Amino acid sequence: MAATKRLHVTTETAGLMRALKAGGADVVLCASNPLSTQDDVAAALVEEFDVSVFAIKGEDHDTYYSHIEAAVDHKPHLTMDDGADVIGVLHSARREQLGDIIAGTEETTTGVIRLKALEAEGKLGFPIIAVNEALTKHMFDNRYGTGQSTIDGIIRATNVLLAGKKFVVAGYGWVGRGVASRARGLGAQVIITEVDPLRALEASMDGFDVMTMQQAAEVGDIFCTATGDKSVITREHYDVMKDGAILSNTGHFNVEIDIPALKSLATDTRTAREFVEEFTQPDGRRLYLIADGRLVNLAAAEGHPALVMDMSFANQALSVEYAVQHAGELDRKVYPVPAEIDKEIARLKLATMGVDIDVLTEEQARYLASWDEGT
Amino acid sequence: MAATKRLHVTTETAGLMRALKAGGADVVLCASNPLSTQDDVAAALVEEFDVSVFAIKGEDHDTYYSHIEAAVDHKPHLTMDDGADVIGVLHSARREQLGDIIAGTEETTTGVIRLKALEAEGKLGFPIIAVNEALTKHMFDNRYGTGQSTIDGIIRATNVLLAGKKFVVAGYGWVGRGVASRARGLGAQVIITEVDPLRALEASMDGFDVMTMQQAAEVGDIFCTATGDKSVITREHYDVMKDGAILSNTGHFNVEIDIPALKSLATDTRTAREFVEEFTQPDGRRLYLIADGRLVNLAAAEGHPALVMDMSFANQALSVEYAVQHAGELDRKVYPVPAEIDKEIARLKLATMGVDIDVLTEEQARYLASWDEGT
Amino acid sequence: MAATKRLHVTTETAGLMRALKAGGADVVLCASNPLSTQDDVAAALVEEFDVSVFAIKGEDHDTYYSHIEAAVDHKPHLTMDDGADVIGVLHSARREQLGDIIAGTEETTTGVIRLKALEAEGKLGFPIIAVNEALTKHMFDNRYGTGQSTIDGIIRATNVLLAGKKFVVAGYGWVGRGVASRARGLGAQVIITEVDPLRALEASMDGFDVMTMQQAAEVGDIFCTATGDKSVITREHYDVMKDGAILSNTGHFNVEIDIPALKSLATDTRTAREFVEEFTQPDGRRLYLIADGRLVNLAAAEGHPALVMDMSFANQALSVEYAVQHAGELDRKVYPVPAEIDKEIARLKLATMGVDIDVLTEEQARYLASWDEGT
Amino acid sequence: MAATKRLHVTTETAGLMRALKAGGADVVLCASNPLSTQDDVAAALVEEFDVSVFAIKGEDHDTYYSHIEAAVDHKPHLTMDDGADVIGVLHSARREQLGDIIAGTEETTTGVIRLKALEAEGKLGFPIIAVNEALTKHMFDNRYGTGQSTIDGIIRATNVLLAGKKFVVAGYGWVGRGVASRARGLGAQVIITEVDPLRALEASMDGFDVMTMQQAAEVGDIFCTATGDKSVITREHYDVMKDGAILSNTGHFNVEIDIPALKSLATDTRTAREFVEEFTQPDGRRLYLIADGRLVNLAAAEGHPALVMDMSFANQALSVEYAVQHAGELDRKVYPVPAEIDKEIARLKLATMGVDIDVLTEEQARYLASWDEGT
Repeated sequence: MAATKRLHVTTETAGLMRALKAGGADVVLCASNPLSTQDDVAAALVEEFDVSVFAIKGEDHDTYYSHIEAAVDHKPHLTMDDGADVIGVLHSARREQLGDIIAGTEETTTGVIRLKALEAEGKLGFPIIAVNEALTKHMFDNRYGTGQSTIDGIIRATNVLLAGKKFVVAGYGWVGRGVASRARGLGAQVIITEVDPLRALEASMDGFDVMTMQQAAEVGDIFCTATGDKSVITREHYDVMKDGAILSNTGHFNVEIDIPALKSLATDTRTAREFVEEFTQPDGRRLYLIADGRLVNLAAAEGHPALVMDMSFANQALSVEYAVQHAGELDRKVYPVPAEIDKEIARLKLATMGVDIDVLTEEQARYLASWDEGT
Repeated sequence: MAATKRLHVTTETAGLMRALKAGGADVVLCASNPLSTQDDVAAALVEEFDVSVFAIKGEDHDTYYSHIEAAVDHKPHLTMDDGADVIGVLHSARREQLGDIIAGTEETTTGVIRLKALEAEGKLGFPIIAVNEALTKHMFDNRYGTGQSTIDGIIRATNVLLAGKKFVVAGYGWVGRGVASRARGLGAQVIITEVDPLRALEASMDGFDVMTMQQAAEVGDIFCTATGDKSVITREHYDVMKDGAILSNTGHFNVEIDIPALKSLATDTRTAREFVEEFTQPDGRRLYLIADGRLVNLAAAEGHPALVMDMSFANQALSVEYAVQHAGELDRKVYPVPAEIDKEIARLKLATMGVDIDVLTEEQARYLASWDEGT
Repeated sequence: MAATKRLHVTTETAGLMRALKAGGADVVLCASNPLSTQDDVAAALVEEFDVSVFAIKGEDHDTYYSHIEAAVDHKPHLTMDDGADVIGVLHSARREQLGDIIAGTEETTTGVIRLKALEAEGKLGFPIIAVNEALTKHMFDNRYGTGQSTIDGIIRATNVLLAGKKFVVAGYGWVGRGVASRARGLGAQVIITEVDPLRALEASMDGFDVMTMQQAAEVGDIFCTATGDKSVITREHYDVMKDGAILSNTGHFNVEIDIPALKSLATDTRTAREFVEEFTQPDGRRLYLIADGRLVNLAAAEGHPALVMDMSFANQALSVEYAVQHAGELDRKVYPVPAEIDKEIARLKLATMGVDIDVLTEEQARYLASWDEGT
Repeated sequence: MAATKRLHVTTETAGLMRALKAGGADVVLCASNPLSTQDDVAAALVEEFDVSVFAIKGEDHDTYYSHIEAAVDHKPHLTMDDGADVIGVLHSARREQLGDIIAGTEETTTGVIRLKALEAEGKLGFPIIAVNEALTKHMFDNRYGTGQSTIDGIIRATNVLLAGKKFVVAGYGWVGRGVASRARGLGAQVIITEVDPLRALEASMDGFDVMTMQQAAEVGDIFCTATGDKSVITREHYDVMKDGAILSNTGHFNVEIDIPALKSLATDTRTAREFVEEFTQPDGRRLYLIADGRLVNLAAAEGHPALVMDMSFANQALSVEYAVQHAGELDRKVYPVPAEIDKEIARLKLATMGVDIDVLTEEQARYLASWDEGT
């Protein structure tokens, strides 16, 4: 069975590719982000494991899309996407292939939002399992994995000391709260911006300072966007930022920081360190952009540790298996990962960590299911 | 319109009673827990605000149930319950009244579990709005409110220093994680026990030591149950606990700690401090039980701060209003609080805190709803 | 041998009194703070343990000093002071008794500062052992003990939820950092004010927001002073505080908050809760003062847990023993607690906690003492 | 005036060299650690700034010492040392040069211990200013700087996820507590081992699990030594460690982990990743050693951020200036950095951070200095 994977080309992805091949799939891989490819991994997959890979670190916009096209040429029966760009191509230029596809999975918050929009318009061409919605995916990958690796990327890129810094996180979703928690754990004073009052309230109760981006722009030392939306930091914010402010993004696409505005405002630009561009403002203040506003954990560090990706990719592999086994029952909708898969992955993970937990006794299970036991 | 409320009789409840009366309701109040009544509040409600109250702090089991009966005699059209005991009486001894009732609300995790069991058996007699499920209720009340007030109750009862202690929390639901977070914040080394592998994994990734209760029993200095289940700490645990171990519960009912077993094992018992019973074991070890295993935050402290209950009770009041307005559309099911009510409460709360947040621009809202904007 | 003790009259103090009597001392006790006396403890000491006690909870200024006089009438050979008021009386109205005194101990930061000032002027009348300087005293008592009990006092007095509040701590000494750490641990956003640049820098690197009191006054919800100095919060701060701001002090004397100014500004005052006075400002804003600005942990809670005071009082008892044994070698100076006493107390404390630690091997000890082992 | 500097050859050191040259010194630089040299920095110092540098990354033991000899050949009047190896050479093979030297500074805890041992034996040949003892040095550099950069080094070397891991820190001095705090901040469960009961007690009260290394060896996932002593992790610990355990050191010398024992036990060794050696035990368990047991923050990451080193090096530069100005008054002793220098550096640092702090009023200063103001 042919499968097209579009994922970050890292060692962890390589592990997933090998598992799928072992399960009998004919696999083709392209990059989910122009900067996240590890070229040595790509080479090893091709040479040692006979997986077709279309991805080069730093590839330009046209090459990136030509690589997606090349992967789709493979006529996949299954897709695994990370940001929904393969699915996007299939639903626009390649609509004739939609009927061949049994199902797909989607890895990211951003991709799931896009696919639900497609479903709402009645245009979704095949069933999707939203891997991102699994607890063993988003709680661990988005929160703990991205939390640590985003901070890691910022530190590697800048060697900045976080202690004592005002660190602004835009968005208090799973990723944002992971980043916020880890920045605080390293001694930063963390500020949150949000558009959702429930999340804003939660951030405040978690001890973070909540304010608008316009207020935060004046006091922040380091900024990191994690909203999944565009134009979160833009011209009116650059105008009031402090000299030396550092800008980074850990949302899926590099649209959260308005880079065209940053470039057009600058009177001078230079590379301050590897991955760090300096933009001098007309009044002399210098703003620093990391990794061209792309996912800072993948571009400037190594992405998630293998110890988180194992759970995300277990969801991918088991969800694809589930989709093939239940192909007849699935409509052109976005489905969650079945709860049994989710729980089983957690159980296996705890076992590998050597952690024992309690099991409900029969008496306890019965009590939870009853409505007539009183005080 | 007649309404029966069964809630903890505290100053915050009094505020809610006054709001309901102002909205035109004829209100009767009985206690949700034999130890949580503040007698001066009960008196003031009767004398100054003309609300009938059936509740006495420390009332025995029979009086407690006779008070529920008395409240039900009032022939309510609406119920507000906290643990589902009024609803339990209505579904057993008072089934003839079920038809008079427009709807009810339920405040606790425990109650919602019982009511869903009733619904699953097809026996639920009127629509329920599960106030506990609202984000502005369970995230704030269960987590932040119970987190702080549980610790407060334990400290008031024992004057123990938490720094350096091994503090065992049974259950990593909203309440458990609130307690765990606050115990850690006061310097304790926190251990979590769980039966759900997903929650156990999350606790571990949050930096807590996860183990079985049998393992925890040997090392813990302070124990607090927050599972909503029964027999969480029992004989085999007492047998291995350290001399001086402190036992408390913050789950809804006092069944989480097996108190009959504790009493039957003890060779000697005495009151060590107000709210603290000492149970001497045959080998001389002394175990300390707080507040007879009842909700420690209500029995030994003042329950939730008003600043949390405001949101829970806003959910109660607005859910009852919603139920009356939409009576014709509601089936005999357990419903969540409508999302607009939830979000509106968060928005109002932030305003009272003086916190400004961002608002989506038109461009940002459009981007989130689209599926065809790419990298 | 006659000894005068001037300490907070609490159950822990009672334990120390009993130990001293068991060691053969003839003990007299007076209060170190007009609000911190537990009257039942005072009564038990008199009736059951034959200790003379001059202390009544809430005694006025004149009674307080007449009690100190009565204690000094006892002609002590040793003094144990907590704030240096007994020593103050001995160095002013009772100079003729100075020659009778072998040595004294002092418990607080404030008292040690006063006694060093006396020594610097050449006026100190007998040797002092500064118990406060022992690591097993100030690290644990001032930081962990006062940290928890100060928060406890504020919560008991007000039932405020700390999560989401801006909590201002004045002073980042041992007490201040204890309070700051615990307030953060309960979810507050903590702001520090300081006059010492080293401490201010450390607070900032610890992740706290550091600013002037004038800046903090505008944004704070709860204030707690811990500086050992006077007039830390005063008129210009009251003028800009938010409606509902809560004021408390955990420094030794009630001079840190300028209470006369608060009273003179108020257009109306009333008792809002036990221990909480409401002061209405001319523009209608209401400010709340806890426990008349006295030590909030002693006045509104139970003071330090016994588990901290054990170490402080072990320092007291062993320092007095040391002073008697080394009377001939001591000058009229302020001495630290001998390091061996300090370390021995830590060793004993760990043993009671069941904590094992490593011991230097001979090879390791030699390595640490050497200068000629290289890379 | 000739000066020999022996410091980690990093960009921050280069900044200090340039400052000293600007002050008129004739500077020679050699490495303080065979692995910490940044070769491009060394080259730039030689070529662009005319500083003699004797240091190559990865130089062997003989080359390392021949470089020290070469530096000493320069006949320095002042020394700046980092681990006391230059001073060691001067006090053994080059005793004839001792008389030429005005003073020296020492940067590390380890070096200060060695120099105090030398002073105690009456053998110290010239005055030393212990830069490490300055608060603006050890509180910030050792704690915050090493804390973050040690974690950074471990993550860069292994890409391990810290959340959920048991992280063992040996030593709870300034460095150890920095590492412990940051590991906890990233979600690890932190275990402390100590030999000093006071520090062990403090670690316990800070919420860490304290145990012996033998106990920790059985449960730890990641180990980091920070004791300044030798043979902290050795054969009996390797025997019980879990498969996959990671070993690292952030103490000054690579003697804390017993590497010869690790090598002799292994049945197989290989390089698992850059900087990570895998040692297979006879029973198949694999242990991973980072950076050959050398300072992990310098070997596998970039050392301290410039934002911390600025304060350490300000202490170096101002201490040397002070030593030259006060040469006549200094004996052959180890001196602390003068308090005014320390405080001035903190004041300057806060100013660069844009932080305002309070200033004592005249009334407040007088109060602090008085002994006769009472309750």
